[in-house]
Amino acid sequence: MRSYRLFCLWLALASGSALAAGSGQTGALLFGLFWVVLAAAVMGTLASKLGIPAVVGQVVAGILIGPSVLELVRPETFFLTLAEIGAIFLLFMVGLETRLGELLRVGREALLVAVLGIALPLALGFGFGLWQGQTNVSALFVGTALVATSVGITAKVLQELGVLGERFAQVILGAAVIDDILGLTLLAVVSGLGNGEELSAAQVGLTLGLSVGFVAAVLALGIPLVRRAQPRLQRLSLSRAFNVALVVGLGLAALSTVAGLAPIIGAFLAGMVLAEVKDEVAFESKVHAIEAFLAPVFFVVVGLQLDLGTLTQPTVVVAGLALTLLAVVGKLLGGLLGARTLGPREATLVGLGMVPRGEVGLIVASLGLGAGLIGETVYAEVLLMVLLTTIVAPLVLRAMWRRERLVQQAP
Amino acid sequence: MRSYRLFCLWLALASGSALAAGSGQTGALLFGLFWVVLAAAVMGTLASKLGIPAVVGQVVAGILIGPSVLELVRPETFFLTLAEIGAIFLLFMVGLETRLGELLRVGREALLVAVLGIALPLALGFGFGLWQGQTNVSALFVGTALVATSVGITAKVLQELGVLGERFAQVILGAAVIDDILGLTLLAVVSGLGNGEELSAAQVGLTLGLSVGFVAAVLALGIPLVRRAQPRLQRLSLSRAFNVALVVGLGLAALSTVAGLAPIIGAFLAGMVLAEVKDEVAFESKVHAIEAFLAPVFFVVVGLQLDLGTLTQPTVVVAGLALTLLAVVGKLLGGLLGARTLGPREATLVGLGMVPRGEVGLIVASLGLGAGLIGETVYAEVLLMVLLTTIVAPLVLRAMWRRERLVQQAP
Repeated sequence: MRSYRLFCLWLALASGSALAAGSGQTGALLFGLFWVVLAAAVMGTLASKLGIPAVVGQVVAGILIGPSVLELVRPETFFLTLAEIGAIFLLFMVGLETRLGELLRVGREALLVAVLGIALPLALGFGFGLWQGQTNVSALFVGTALVATSVGITAKVLQELGVLGERFAQVILGAAVIDDILGLTLLAVVSGLGNGEELSAAQVGLTLGLSVGFVAAVLALGIPLVRRAQPRLQRLSLSRAFNVALVVGLGLAALSTVAGLAPIIGAFLAGMVLAEVKDEVAFESKVHAIEAFLAPVFFVVVGLQLDLGTLTQPTVVVAGLALTLLAVVGKLLGGLLGARTLGPREATLVGLGMVPRGEVGLIVASLGLGAGLIGETVYAEVLLMVLLTTIVAPLVLRAMWRRERLVQQAP
Repeated sequence: MRSYRLFCLWLALASGSALAAGSGQTGALLFGLFWVVLAAAVMGTLASKLGIPAVVGQVVAGILIGPSVLELVRPETFFLTLAEIGAIFLLFMVGLETRLGELLRVGREALLVAVLGIALPLALGFGFGLWQGQTNVSALFVGTALVATSVGITAKVLQELGVLGERFAQVILGAAVIDDILGLTLLAVVSGLGNGEELSAAQVGLTLGLSVGFVAAVLALGIPLVRRAQPRLQRLSLSRAFNVALVVGLGLAALSTVAGLAPIIGAFLAGMVLAEVKDEVAFESKVHAIEAFLAPVFFVVVGLQLDLGTLTQPTVVVAGLALTLLAVVGKLLGGLLGARTLGPREATLVGLGMVPRGEVGLIVASLGLGAGLIGETVYAEVLLMVLLTTIVAPLVLRAMWRRERLVQQAP
């Protein structure tokens, strides 16, 4: 009996490796993907039935099937990359819903929200780190982890609620782009400091200029270009139009990394550019299908990376809760002050929308841990902050929007 | 200037690694995916305009951007796995077009085509190897590489031509399933021999039984189950129905590896099972969008793995051409003899459909090379055989079907 099971196992491995031509990983990855998709479907549906954003259910699904609990899937490069592609298609779709004109109309608010939403959490996190007795560099890393906003989480919640066209949602999206430009520049500076290489003001200016220039160039050149190409695009078959959308979306996502931006920013810009012709050229339904497949993978993979095994000491939990409080206060204040022209309720929604730290907070913390700039304890505290902001903010945002709408609908 | 470019590079790497949390690979993989999608779109369109199957253009695209020519992308695990997922969605779609009843009606022909299409190439390849002076095990590996049929390539050509419902196409699909069952069992036996472990007849019987049992069980249990669940499935929203399709497709693909089958066979069965309700439950268009994105990735990745750099010696090219001839003759004879009840023309189409060796031939050769059972020279010969059968067979198949149709349409 035992030899039979061994033989089955051997065969499974042999045929699993079938397409990997010797790497032997593909079969296991396929099973992993099955678990990810199954968990996302089950927990997403359950969450929706409970009146909770599906995103939250999917992040929890990732925690459940990940290293913390069931250990069915590990956050390997394959899943991280597939998740990134999922986030790319998500922001591409969100971009398709976004018109540049409307975004520019709230440009001042978005800029203020982004700048305040970076300055306040950075200062709070840095102060907290110093107060804890961390080194300057370690405290700076904590501050930087508090800066990161995961726009993917919020964007999905806004998409689910069908409010991407609302003014507060436009502020969030605009702020997210600026947040990414400033945040990645900050990360470059802080990482440089950690390595003992101080970046000159000229270099920082260059980095900033490159990112800003990329965004401006894509929009300034892309939109007229797409408009001019419209007659030709309209004549394309559905499958060719879809190919064009894929090439533009993935191309700008890849290019944005060269400009020092996250790939999702490039995908968002690609969506905004193609939004100009989406009513005339049919490709949206196909892009939507890919988003429906891969965006849940992104949320589950965020959960996979949240290894709760590190949260064992009560002191870490207490410090993590304090850090979470600062993380929330920093972004909420940033939203309230930056978007005060929208009124206190919408400004609160903006602040809430900037709260989830998701994968971006994890990246900063992982970079710091990997480079030996922060310790295991600080990493665990940041992890708890990421977990709570990622899961709780969407819950509050959704509940608040629902109440808001009821108030509006009442006479 | 130099420090500026270094800084850009550093930033690109830093932000590329952004979502990989330290693995540093994601940015590069994203660029790779962009090249794959771009090359597939351009070469697929070009091929279609030249009246050639898009698949052929996409395999050539993979050769062009791969290690042989432009060196833009390497066949890494990520691409191999994504390609496998593409093949899974392709065969899932093909399964959706296939009804069990129609497949069983040509069951006898399919079985004969599969058995002859394995026995003849195996014998020819083994004989050729021995004639070349190879060891018994090496010659057996060459024979096994000649056995492999890449149904993905043919299935896509048939799908493009819109002839999946024709009798000869059903014979090809049925034969492909049986071919996979027998082929993977053969590979297990031959690999075992290579490792000096002879499998007993009982073990071989068990392997065969497991594969056959899996196929029979999925169809015998799945179809009534899906029919019974139809009323509940019909009430699902589009996105939930799509989730069910994803879970069933990926689940059966993963499970089939445990039964000693290729994942695409499980996906094909999943498609056949869900075909029962596809007219009532809307998920096909979404699955189709994912296939449209990922199936071209599969064909490009087949090309990526064809490193022509190994084909430098004229003697290797001559031996490879001879091997190709045997590979074609073996499958053509298998088709002609096995499907002779369909008449000589359709039987030839069946034989042609079984000719492409694609990724499956590469896997057998790579396994043999990796285990030291075949040498570099023999590997290069098999590579040429895979290249030619994969590219030429679809060309001939399409041309022959077109002429056939003209003959039928003429009064």
